[in-house]
Amino acid sequence: MTPLSGIFVPNIVPYDAKRRINEDEHRRSVRWRGGRGVTGFYPNGSMGEFIRLSYEERKLVLKIVVEEAGGRPILAGAAEPNVDLVLEMCKYCADLGCRAVSITGPYYYKLTQESIEAYFRELAAKSPIDIVVYNIPVFANEITVPVLKRLALDCPRIIGTKDTSKDMCRFQMTLHEIKGQRPDFGILIGWEELLCTSLFMGADGATLSSGGVVPEVVMKIFREAKAGNWNEARRVQFKLLDLFTLMVSAPNFPEGFRAGYELRGFQAGHARFPLSEGEYVAIEDMRARLACILAEAGFTDAALSCRCKNPTPAGIEPADVAAIVRAVLEKLQT
Amino acid sequence: MTPLSGIFVPNIVPYDAKRRINEDEHRRSVRWRGGRGVTGFYPNGSMGEFIRLSYEERKLVLKIVVEEAGGRPILAGAAEPNVDLVLEMCKYCADLGCRAVSITGPYYYKLTQESIEAYFRELAAKSPIDIVVYNIPVFANEITVPVLKRLALDCPRIIGTKDTSKDMCRFQMTLHEIKGQRPDFGILIGWEELLCTSLFMGADGATLSSGGVVPEVVMKIFREAKAGNWNEARRVQFKLLDLFTLMVSAPNFPEGFRAGYELRGFQAGHARFPLSEGEYVAIEDMRARLACILAEAGFTDAALSCRCKNPTPAGIEPADVAAIVRAVLEKLQT
Amino acid sequence: MTPLSGIFVPNIVPYDAKRRINEDEHRRSVRWRGGRGVTGFYPNGSMGEFIRLSYEERKLVLKIVVEEAGGRPILAGAAEPNVDLVLEMCKYCADLGCRAVSITGPYYYKLTQESIEAYFRELAAKSPIDIVVYNIPVFANEITVPVLKRLALDCPRIIGTKDTSKDMCRFQMTLHEIKGQRPDFGILIGWEELLCTSLFMGADGATLSSGGVVPEVVMKIFREAKAGNWNEARRVQFKLLDLFTLMVSAPNFPEGFRAGYELRGFQAGHARFPLSEGEYVAIEDMRARLACILAEAGFTDAALSCRCKNPTPAGIEPADVAAIVRAVLEKLQT
Amino acid sequence: MTPLSGIFVPNIVPYDAKRRINEDEHRRSVRWRGGRGVTGFYPNGSMGEFIRLSYEERKLVLKIVVEEAGGRPILAGAAEPNVDLVLEMCKYCADLGCRAVSITGPYYYKLTQESIEAYFRELAAKSPIDIVVYNIPVFANEITVPVLKRLALDCPRIIGTKDTSKDMCRFQMTLHEIKGQRPDFGILIGWEELLCTSLFMGADGATLSSGGVVPEVVMKIFREAKAGNWNEARRVQFKLLDLFTLMVSAPNFPEGFRAGYELRGFQAGHARFPLSEGEYVAIEDMRARLACILAEAGFTDAALSCRCKNPTPAGIEPADVAAIVRAVLEKLQT
Repeated sequence: MTPLSGIFVPNIVPYDAKRRINEDEHRRSVRWRGGRGVTGFYPNGSMGEFIRLSYEERKLVLKIVVEEAGGRPILAGAAEPNVDLVLEMCKYCADLGCRAVSITGPYYYKLTQESIEAYFRELAAKSPIDIVVYNIPVFANEITVPVLKRLALDCPRIIGTKDTSKDMCRFQMTLHEIKGQRPDFGILIGWEELLCTSLFMGADGATLSSGGVVPEVVMKIFREAKAGNWNEARRVQFKLLDLFTLMVSAPNFPEGFRAGYELRGFQAGHARFPLSEGEYVAIEDMRARLACILAEAGFTDAALSCRCKNPTPAGIEPADVAAIVRAVLEKLQT
Repeated sequence: MTPLSGIFVPNIVPYDAKRRINEDEHRRSVRWRGGRGVTGFYPNGSMGEFIRLSYEERKLVLKIVVEEAGGRPILAGAAEPNVDLVLEMCKYCADLGCRAVSITGPYYYKLTQESIEAYFRELAAKSPIDIVVYNIPVFANEITVPVLKRLALDCPRIIGTKDTSKDMCRFQMTLHEIKGQRPDFGILIGWEELLCTSLFMGADGATLSSGGVVPEVVMKIFREAKAGNWNEARRVQFKLLDLFTLMVSAPNFPEGFRAGYELRGFQAGHARFPLSEGEYVAIEDMRARLACILAEAGFTDAALSCRCKNPTPAGIEPADVAAIVRAVLEKLQT
Repeated sequence: MTPLSGIFVPNIVPYDAKRRINEDEHRRSVRWRGGRGVTGFYPNGSMGEFIRLSYEERKLVLKIVVEEAGGRPILAGAAEPNVDLVLEMCKYCADLGCRAVSITGPYYYKLTQESIEAYFRELAAKSPIDIVVYNIPVFANEITVPVLKRLALDCPRIIGTKDTSKDMCRFQMTLHEIKGQRPDFGILIGWEELLCTSLFMGADGATLSSGGVVPEVVMKIFREAKAGNWNEARRVQFKLLDLFTLMVSAPNFPEGFRAGYELRGFQAGHARFPLSEGEYVAIEDMRARLACILAEAGFTDAALSCRCKNPTPAGIEPADVAAIVRAVLEKLQT
Repeated sequence: MTPLSGIFVPNIVPYDAKRRINEDEHRRSVRWRGGRGVTGFYPNGSMGEFIRLSYEERKLVLKIVVEEAGGRPILAGAAEPNVDLVLEMCKYCADLGCRAVSITGPYYYKLTQESIEAYFRELAAKSPIDIVVYNIPVFANEITVPVLKRLALDCPRIIGTKDTSKDMCRFQMTLHEIKGQRPDFGILIGWEELLCTSLFMGADGATLSSGGVVPEVVMKIFREAKAGNWNEARRVQFKLLDLFTLMVSAPNFPEGFRAGYELRGFQAGHARFPLSEGEYVAIEDMRARLACILAEAGFTDAALSCRCKNPTPAGIEPADVAAIVRAVLEKLQT
């Protein structure tokens, strides 16, 4: 048995002018990412705004991904609001042939670790599809490492975890506590900044928001790491920091990534959640800076949006940018 | 124009053996609370587990409350997951004749205050029914006092706020900042421990989980406060602390209140979310202690569940209990 | 036995041009506050910057307070950095005739409640002077209510508590848990915003930073509350909010209160800790607004610093101010 | 110019029966660590309980380290409670020939980043010795990366930083933001769990509490990392996790490390801060488990304290331990 591994990329949900899902663009963007060599897909996660879609919309988003995946494995979010609905969604995912479902800790209420463990045990006992435990404490109840370890050792249906805690100490302890006793448990990092160090310490892979915008970059880091080319992996990792920081710092996640999508040629539409006028301006500004970095990095599809002669992201000297970009180009085009 | 005022009581959602909503018990419990003189009803809030119900179930819960309210005003939770669904629910509530809807800050994602303000402004502009802004930062994004003040001064549709922050300083500042410029803005406290002090400083009313279990007690405090009988109000407030602490400290809110419901004679069923075995035991233990306090306080419907000769809540001497209860009895039966 | 009660006012430490303690101004400000009828004094607390003084300086500050107290009781901060030094300071305070010492939870390290309890038990066993347990969780380790209760019931030397947690629920629970079993335990509130509600629920008194700037106002609230004139107490409380908010919101506590001192006629000197240039400007601006409120409130000593014809604090209309101030004047001058 | 680099090890302060500093043991333990090849020493940091010592005691601790350092460089804690005292201590350290001083963000009060920057700028302008900015947000005010970057680019006296935030993302961003523009700025990690990943991403070195207990282990990781033997470095890092977790999880830091000192043959004495009886038992238990791990790892000085035939740390199978230890032994003895 080999653990779940590789990079599973989530998607922005594109909307049309009436805030309905733009099915064509969604379909096209899945194909596009597949064409860039991503390992698999990760719909209905946090970046996919699962929480803001209706139950039927989540099914629609997933169905399209399945149809366009070209056989690549799918890890599908199934964090529905109660046990019965989670299990219903698990069945739907199983029927569509997904590889596994990803389930966050419960959100809204603050629950005890005891009952969170009971929750996952009940799901593991009844689910017709493999489960990945998704830890994202900034949005939902944390699942602690001791709970995760007991679940990993007791429940065959639970085949891995995805960690978006931004906490390298926790991630490392997860590897240390579980891998020795269950080597086929897939341990994925869910935070771009920790991609390289996580792979270095033994992670099996990742799910990364940036993967939807620059799949070429995240796949490059993954491939170099797997090949043991740590110097290369590290160099590209530092480049990824600039892109990621810009997108993740934009107001109201995932709006920064929506801007990135558009720069790569997709009509992402307006957010389903209102932004203030100031925030629209901030995102426009951020998009302009992102366009320049992408353009110089050789992403020609983004070049049209770069309106500056000498692209200068805030706080970075033009000379630095040129050097950075040249380095990225060399890495990426080889 | 007079502000929204009085005590609006939420409900536990009772389930049957298959975790479906037990409509008959829900219907009966609404009538029962109405018969105990509550000002109005507050379905689909945090205690009502709105987040764990399906969209259709939330409509069902509300419809039953409307049918059994006997004309008492209804403040209905409408914190749906996106703007369009919130507005759809607002229309539903308006059509049923509710007094207003209560809307939390968005949950799951962490959003900026700017966009939270934009969110409420859009709702206020489009809603066919009055809106109460519900601040519950432990579960959902906080709405700060400056944002709330601007909304209160600019949006006629926003007619009040409900505060469950447990923060008396914030509540007092809300009164201080808004009441002078918009006296008809209803300011409700949403935390039992602060009921008496909030009314003392000028609150218009409250929504209180305990109101579903001991409506007699919370209405007593409200009436005494409104009559200026502060010594009486304060004495009963300290008694309420014991009941509330027991219920709110039980694992996995609102399970402690579910136990309270059962003691008052309702079949609340099992929670829709699994608890650990240890937690079931803890809640049984808590229920036994609660039964004794209720029994001695003269709630004869709870007396049958009191299995002890000398009810002794943890850390309280029997003699103390007797004295406490006698005092409560005197207050409540007069 | 009656509990410790009344308002104990702390002091700003005035510095000269070389950042040494300005003994004359300190002496004069103690006399001045005594002349305004404060119950007692509270040197070497958080406002008194105990943590930034040397050991010998703390002794000097206290000695001057003792000499100028005119027989009023003194509650002296003694939160020295280890047990032996705390006890040494306790002896010093006892020898000077202080009423009691106030000791915070340990700061810097995060300690367990078990060892914090052991710490206070050791101090209680060895101290030659009564102890007040000072809870200020924003700066030092919290002392939880169960620990405080056990200390209160077991240790005669521990005669009270001062609570600066800003948490009314906690304060109320402290009253509820301890007063019934040890009525002579003095329970003081340490946060201005909660003065009126705390007294209403049964507090014995307070220590308040504002007491150093507007002793007239805080003593007014205390007297009205003790006389049962709750409407008066509440009205003045809302006025105090404006003064306090201005001072406590200034950058780098206690610098806002230092500005207040100066407005009442004392040379407070520059802070012992550097501020940025922007912060000096912010404090100047805040001082100007404070001067106007104080001037209009009839504090003629502050009138000279009011440079505006129509003092208008931010966000408050001139007409409102006039009304507010007239009300305060009436209250304060009667 | 080369940046500050290598591993600087702090010390436990050993006490005698009267809670005075045990000078002889302190002296002996410095020599012992020097003999095990540590890069340098780090007295008067958090592990060295600087906050619980008197000013004179801190000078004594440092003086002994200087006398026994055998020429190894010393990074001395100088986080005194106000600017003048910090500068006085800086002069003392300079006179003794220390390499640099380490200064935490201010503790107790919560200060703005603006004034924290002003604080370090004033120190940098006046200090006669190089300064390392010590970020330890769990105990003292954080110094954000943008502030740190400005200090690094503007102040020649500030030559490095030590980061104990446990936050790999922050550490990586510190490297990314500063190293490119000031390559001679020394960036040290102050948290064991992140030693290997930090060195992998470009850290210059570390200060580590474990270095006082198992200097052999931390120096091994450092040397392997510097030689590019990443597989070796990573393997020993995972072993270090077990030792470190045991010591850092003991109640009341740094008591777990005190137990480790004793196991290596030093009389550390009792803590200067009281522990509860339960905590003494917990530390005894932890010491027994630590002894076994150390004994099996070939630290023969610790073997005498291992009272078990088959040392089995909680949650680890004996077979696992044997394998672990053999691996460590091989690594360490080569």
